Amino acid sequence: MADTATERLSGAAARYGDADATLDVANDVVRLQLAHRSVRRFTGRDVTDEELAALVAAAQSAPTSSNLQPWSVIAVRDPERKARLARLSASQDFVAQAPLFLVWIADLGRARRLAERAGTDVHAADYLETTLIGFIDTALAAQNAVVAAESLGLGSVFVGAIRNRPEAVAAELGLPPHTVAAFGLAVGEPDPAERADVKPRLPQEAVLHREQYDRASDDLIPVYDERLEAYNRRFGLKGTWTDRVLTRLKGPESMGGRHVLREVLERFGLPSR
Amino acid sequence: MADTATERLSGAAARYGDADATLDVANDVVRLQLAHRSVRRFTGRDVTDEELAALVAAAQSAPTSSNLQPWSVIAVRDPERKARLARLSASQDFVAQAPLFLVWIADLGRARRLAERAGTDVHAADYLETTLIGFIDTALAAQNAVVAAESLGLGSVFVGAIRNRPEAVAAELGLPPHTVAAFGLAVGEPDPAERADVKPRLPQEAVLHREQYDRASDDLIPVYDERLEAYNRRFGLKGTWTDRVLTRLKGPESMGGRHVLREVLERFGLPSR
Repeated sequence: MADTATERLSGAAARYGDADATLDVANDVVRLQLAHRSVRRFTGRDVTDEELAALVAAAQSAPTSSNLQPWSVIAVRDPERKARLARLSASQDFVAQAPLFLVWIADLGRARRLAERAGTDVHAADYLETTLIGFIDTALAAQNAVVAAESLGLGSVFVGAIRNRPEAVAAELGLPPHTVAAFGLAVGEPDPAERADVKPRLPQEAVLHREQYDRASDDLIPVYDERLEAYNRRFGLKGTWTDRVLTRLKGPESMGGRHVLREVLERFGLPSR
Repeated sequence: MADTATERLSGAAARYGDADATLDVANDVVRLQLAHRSVRRFTGRDVTDEELAALVAAAQSAPTSSNLQPWSVIAVRDPERKARLARLSASQDFVAQAPLFLVWIADLGRARRLAERAGTDVHAADYLETTLIGFIDTALAAQNAVVAAESLGLGSVFVGAIRNRPEAVAAELGLPPHTVAAFGLAVGEPDPAERADVKPRLPQEAVLHREQYDRASDDLIPVYDERLEAYNRRFGLKGTWTDRVLTRLKGPESMGGRHVLREVLERFGLPSR
């Protein structure tokens, strides 16, 4: 499926906020991926059950460590439940507005229940490593759903704020022990009136290293700071990338309650020994 | 891009190990995703720099929490380095045999260095939540690279065993503080002689819940156990899914050294407070 693509066709210029950025190899799939943007405004059209089935089949097709499949996904369509989950997710209204809200669950409960029924134990699940596998495999699956959704003309945005109030979210979704809401994904048909665009990322040379990690890649950050500031200005926003990273990671007060996640996971039966 | 697809076209039957499985909605992208399989034998052909650039651009196009972009990727082509990394990854020969081995790095180092240069601090990076974001965002990115690779006719397989010997891997790759190898990805042209196929996953109803988590979804596991056993038998292997999950998660002895990951991350400057 490979073909040669100009900068315009590949979408590299928008992705890097750099008019000179090009890709020599691309195809429809790569161009679809490069055109990704977060969608936070949706039209009134529903996501059908058939589309949902395609998204989940795509998600299940992602790689998973030792075929453990340590995740579940909860499809929420009930307007009142979506509204409650929106409130629990930093009151982000688009969670309620999206016709479909998928809550991706890092699910070690299934394996724990298998062990219980077999009268044995899964001590490996007591370790941070296994909890991490749960989150990693959930992310691999969810990203396949994101790409599948975009290929079907749908848009989406991840909602990390579902981790702000994990106990209330678990109660709302009836989560059993050894499971936790890893992130949400609001899905729907993009409202063409939404002002949003492809967000420029770091220059490729800043993240791609050859043979060994090269700290000189940091030298490209000032260039990126300018590009992201120019992008933000188009939407009436301020700040370089550096500004925003430092603000976001300032401390517990910038984490929406998630600084206690480790204790929460411990209580939920996802220990981090 | 949506069209109607029969079971044969959608690939759902192979994906679920169920001749009756169908998808009513699919397209070329979803079919590509459904056809995913792990590739562990590669032809002699190289992965070009142009292909690598496309994979990384796709990876960078994945969503990332607050645009933090907390990851890096190291492209390893040097045969001797690949051989050493293969030995450090449970001696999986395909790591050395693949023309390209990508090591995906959960990278909070970039943000820490930004803070240092700005004379400020990023205390949020002291918490498990932020370390988790590092791994989640690395996974989202890497999965986009997996899909891009397959769209270009390449195959791949993740290598979680890169976490077996994190200190030696960090030395090999010259990793700075606050970074860790999250997983490897062996990439190359699939050797058509490899005996391997699409691995059946859990029935969709076992992982997809509506409105709330439904523990009755566990009732589908015996059906899946039979399907996976039948699949394994085709390759001269034994065991149901339940058998394999319980063996894999038995305890520290089944974790390849990764039961100490939490302490390692602490030493690497990726704390889990």
